[in-house]
Amino acid sequence: MAYQLWYWTGIPGRGEFVRVVLEAGGVAYVDCAREKGDEALVKDMAKRRPEPFAPPYLVTGDLVIAQTANILDWLGRKHGLAPKNEAGRRACAQYQLTIADMVAETHDTHHPVASGLYYQDQKKEATRRAEDFRTNRMPKFLSYFARALGKNDWLVGDRWTYADTSLFVLVDGLRFAFPKRMKAVEADLPALHDHLKRVAALPEFSDYLVSDRRLPFGKGIFRYYPELDAD
Amino acid sequence: MAYQLWYWTGIPGRGEFVRVVLEAGGVAYVDCAREKGDEALVKDMAKRRPEPFAPPYLVTGDLVIAQTANILDWLGRKHGLAPKNEAGRRACAQYQLTIADMVAETHDTHHPVASGLYYQDQKKEATRRAEDFRTNRMPKFLSYFARALGKNDWLVGDRWTYADTSLFVLVDGLRFAFPKRMKAVEADLPALHDHLKRVAALPEFSDYLVSDRRLPFGKGIFRYYPELDAD
Repeated sequence: MAYQLWYWTGIPGRGEFVRVVLEAGGVAYVDCAREKGDEALVKDMAKRRPEPFAPPYLVTGDLVIAQTANILDWLGRKHGLAPKNEAGRRACAQYQLTIADMVAETHDTHHPVASGLYYQDQKKEATRRAEDFRTNRMPKFLSYFARALGKNDWLVGDRWTYADTSLFVLVDGLRFAFPKRMKAVEADLPALHDHLKRVAALPEFSDYLVSDRRLPFGKGIFRYYPELDAD
Repeated sequence: MAYQLWYWTGIPGRGEFVRVVLEAGGVAYVDCAREKGDEALVKDMAKRRPEPFAPPYLVTGDLVIAQTANILDWLGRKHGLAPKNEAGRRACAQYQLTIADMVAETHDTHHPVASGLYYQDQKKEATRRAEDFRTNRMPKFLSYFARALGKNDWLVGDRWTYADTSLFVLVDGLRFAFPKRMKAVEADLPALHDHLKRVAALPEFSDYLVSDRRLPFGKGIFRYYPELDAD
């Protein structure tokens, strides 16, 4: 039975981290809201137990799994998309949760006051927050992931895991949102560039990347506002 | 063998979510940095593999587990502090990750620009962010947790889990940081008040609450700035 994935239509958002591992792992799923619309999502979510606080969530049989890291840990264990040994699984979860932390901080560069307000209404605050993000947070997080990779092909173990597809989305999204800054930061961190290319070349995943199932960045977490970017 | 817990001294912070479940579950641990200091923590963390991005992390034998939700999932599975069935475990993880999201948003009410700057240097931005937090985010998150409790004693299943001790820290911390606002919000959500009392009365936990192992709120995530609070 194919998984039901529920996530907002129109933005890659946090749903993308689930979508990419399902795609790269060749796991069957239905992207429900893209077939039925966001109103159907809201209705569906309200009746699920445990009720998700927000999308994405995954439904399989009687099981409802919400929160991205929770979904990925489930898929990792169930479909061999994380190591079988405990240390490897915990390492994957650790990287995933750190990626999620950086994703939240990325979002807050353009929405530092309230996610319910327009960017234009918090532009001044965004300028300050983005400056700190570029100067302090980007090098700190990204050099951490480069160290975690070291000379290895993958973050954990000797084959790709969901931590790798998640790092792909993060780095790819940051390149979209902060092209100047990423060029400067990545110049010192070749491991990130090599890793991105390696993930993009995974057979099932490279198909996805050029398919219309993939939504472009621009809305949601990773947005390009030239005034928030700098070397 | 007792677990080694590593977390900054001087603040309850995210380490508190680990500490409370170890305490309430009667699981032996050494609070390493409180014995050896923050410098020892920094040194220890740098040599661990996988390297934690930040404390808290737990060490047991060869295993290093970082990221709060990851640590709690481990402890839940290992020590019966989460349900044994898959649906219950996933529900616990879901609630924990949603609590973590609210914790991050709470922190950002006083540090909306940069965690490396003083509150005084981002007070103007904090005023706006805190207002949105009080008006929109607090009712949204807290009514969600009250709905999740419903008429049950515990968030998941028929005995307490780490999701319950985490919700305790969250609600207790919010009462400290936003006393006026919490009074107003909790008036409509009696389930939260009852739940907090129920957790506080757990035998091992009630001992902890009055011990000097417990650090007071005031620094770290939950801070009381009267100007950020309102009904």
